[in-house]
Amino acid sequence: MGDNRSIEEITMGMKADSYRMASLSAEARNRILDAVKKELKDSKAKIFEANEKDLFNAKRDNISEAVIKRLKFDEHKLDDVLRGIDQLIGLTDPINKINFRRQLDEGLILEQVTCPIGVIGIIFEARPDALVQISSLCIKSGNCAILKGGKETANTNKVLFDIIYNAAVKAGAPEGCMHQAEGHSEIDELLKCHKSVDLIIPRGSNAFVSYIMNNTKIPVMGHADGVCHTYIDRDADIKKACAIAVDAKTQYTAACNATETLLIDRAVGDENIKTIATALKDAKVKIRGNKEVANLLGCEEMEEKEYCTEYLDMVISLKLVDGVDEAITHINRFGSHHTDCIITENKATAEHFMQLVDSAGTYQNCSTRFADGFRYGFGAEVGISTGKIHARGPVGLAGLTTYKYKLYGEGQIVSDYAEGRKNFDFKELS
Amino acid sequence: MGDNRSIEEITMGMKADSYRMASLSAEARNRILDAVKKELKDSKAKIFEANEKDLFNAKRDNISEAVIKRLKFDEHKLDDVLRGIDQLIGLTDPINKINFRRQLDEGLILEQVTCPIGVIGIIFEARPDALVQISSLCIKSGNCAILKGGKETANTNKVLFDIIYNAAVKAGAPEGCMHQAEGHSEIDELLKCHKSVDLIIPRGSNAFVSYIMNNTKIPVMGHADGVCHTYIDRDADIKKACAIAVDAKTQYTAACNATETLLIDRAVGDENIKTIATALKDAKVKIRGNKEVANLLGCEEMEEKEYCTEYLDMVISLKLVDGVDEAITHINRFGSHHTDCIITENKATAEHFMQLVDSAGTYQNCSTRFADGFRYGFGAEVGISTGKIHARGPVGLAGLTTYKYKLYGEGQIVSDYAEGRKNFDFKELS
Repeated sequence: MGDNRSIEEITMGMKADSYRMASLSAEARNRILDAVKKELKDSKAKIFEANEKDLFNAKRDNISEAVIKRLKFDEHKLDDVLRGIDQLIGLTDPINKINFRRQLDEGLILEQVTCPIGVIGIIFEARPDALVQISSLCIKSGNCAILKGGKETANTNKVLFDIIYNAAVKAGAPEGCMHQAEGHSEIDELLKCHKSVDLIIPRGSNAFVSYIMNNTKIPVMGHADGVCHTYIDRDADIKKACAIAVDAKTQYTAACNATETLLIDRAVGDENIKTIATALKDAKVKIRGNKEVANLLGCEEMEEKEYCTEYLDMVISLKLVDGVDEAITHINRFGSHHTDCIITENKATAEHFMQLVDSAGTYQNCSTRFADGFRYGFGAEVGISTGKIHARGPVGLAGLTTYKYKLYGEGQIVSDYAEGRKNFDFKELS
Repeated sequence: MGDNRSIEEITMGMKADSYRMASLSAEARNRILDAVKKELKDSKAKIFEANEKDLFNAKRDNISEAVIKRLKFDEHKLDDVLRGIDQLIGLTDPINKINFRRQLDEGLILEQVTCPIGVIGIIFEARPDALVQISSLCIKSGNCAILKGGKETANTNKVLFDIIYNAAVKAGAPEGCMHQAEGHSEIDELLKCHKSVDLIIPRGSNAFVSYIMNNTKIPVMGHADGVCHTYIDRDADIKKACAIAVDAKTQYTAACNATETLLIDRAVGDENIKTIATALKDAKVKIRGNKEVANLLGCEEMEEKEYCTEYLDMVISLKLVDGVDEAITHINRFGSHHTDCIITENKATAEHFMQLVDSAGTYQNCSTRFADGFRYGFGAEVGISTGKIHARGPVGLAGLTTYKYKLYGEGQIVSDYAEGRKNFDFKELS
């Protein structure tokens, strides 16, 4: 792009133009997405070529296999993101939706209408598919975006961004509606732009997200840890429990929604506890537990305070509890308010757990790994929020919108109401 | 209360118990509100006596008349807050509401359900009625609250809080669900409690709100300035325009939703501009404007950059613009994204303005002073948000809630879907 402006200048310009992006019609935004999709498809050779460079560099620099797997962008991943764009095009427009319409008095009508947030800064890990998902979510929701991806995919990101941005502008998006920051120092510049950036979404390690939160006045929507629990209740179906525990731990250990701690009700009985432990061991999971667990299973002993550990590996903490209430207390104390599951056939116990566990996701009888924007039917996600403000859990289009109040009058003034000459006459309108 | 614990200890305890507050039924929360209402009514002599002390001290300390007016708590204000509690009891329960219900696959049902935020810290100015409003909103929404009011109403606040808290606990609220911080130093202690406090709502001066934002990791929902605009378009009804401009400026100058800048379309014509100016002068409003305005009206001249001034007084900035687009650009640049109004009989111009002005409230043909929780039909408000995240404009019950995802399964695991043995089958359920 040959842009020599500072991040502050770029985001100030974006802010000034964000109203143009916000006022594009739903058809216009879908048309832009369609153009982006076509252009990505037509330019795949160029994308794969850039990705080869990143892969070559990563191998040369001895980057871990797990990271290399994530930064690889092949035919399969391209198909996935193109399908994602198609889904997004099909989703109902998230903006200009009237949440409610209320008469305050005759001829004084209040509407709460959804609208884009404005300018969003997104800092994400080395995953080229994330760049495509994030920018398409922003286009669909009418937001301007400043993107900063992981340095290990710099070549792929550059090519992808240029394709997306140029296709979007050619199809009618305002110039400057998106920008890709390429230097690492630009993150600190971005954090200072509280006058022009409305929201920062950081993705990455816990330490990184904390750093962002500590160094900006801009509201931050991110997740800290992913210390998820699966609790096996006395009324659990043990076969389901084993399958779910294994899936929740092993299906993708590097994900934030993988289960890190297994809580088992003592009333399940030693025999069943051993069955569950065997299922995990058979799946190559290492079990750690407090003295009681270590004595029962002969596993590695751990201290009580370690129960807040996020392993992101084939290791699980195990603890025995006296029923659902102790499980709830443990989860609310040691968990990260991400996603926690109860395995039980008892409906009342499940409801009690799901009501009192203070997490973005509370599950019954399924894997914590389901906590994901695509699996929730959101088309894609910009991240998973463990905060409680604005958006919680996987964040899709709805999390990228806010609302404004529109009030239509016929000359009404407040002094008439304050001095009793008129009275409000509230009425809900359809 | 004779409580010697630190604010951190108090809020940690509150956090641990917040799940109990959250799980009270709607009936239980309404019963508590009713008990609070009765107790406030029965204890009015005690409340008024405490308020007399505050009034005496305020006069002794030469506190300004405007502040004294706000801190006075008399029969009239008591009636207002009691009516507010009645309204709150009548409002639909804001929590445990299913926002949507979706089948992800057969037997795998996702629900997005509203719930309280948890522990909310509210720092407010010297207004005893605010204490009653805020604590009743928190009870109705199932939140725990830590309250810090202005020091000028320390006596009234203490009596009010004790009445509310004791009545609430006696009627079934968990002990420790509310706390009143009395020392000023406790604000800084509170700002450090990011592990136990989910949201801070500061009310007060711009400098104060900025101080809070700069000194905490806790999400802050507050408003900065209230630089509201009224724009008089070429298609305005000039009679309406005069009445609205006068009301918006003078009905209560100390409020954040009072108009600070009047923009007038040059096409309105000098004659009409003078009529509008005369209406303001007759209402004792001092007009300031740039060179063009000063030359036309003979008023005080001001610099362009002063157009971001919040007077909170009988003074207004005036500027002439070339139509609605210049007005929009001016407001988005100099305004504070609070509430801005267009006076026009032209529906298309109004829609254009209301769409493109990036404020919490965009109005047509009515006073900016309508931006208020009670006037919006929310029963009461905890404040007005000029941020765009979570809640915008007057914040009532909905702004004090968040949501969680509940996922009900029958043993589903993610590997079945990842490896193609099963496919998602999304279906919206009622």
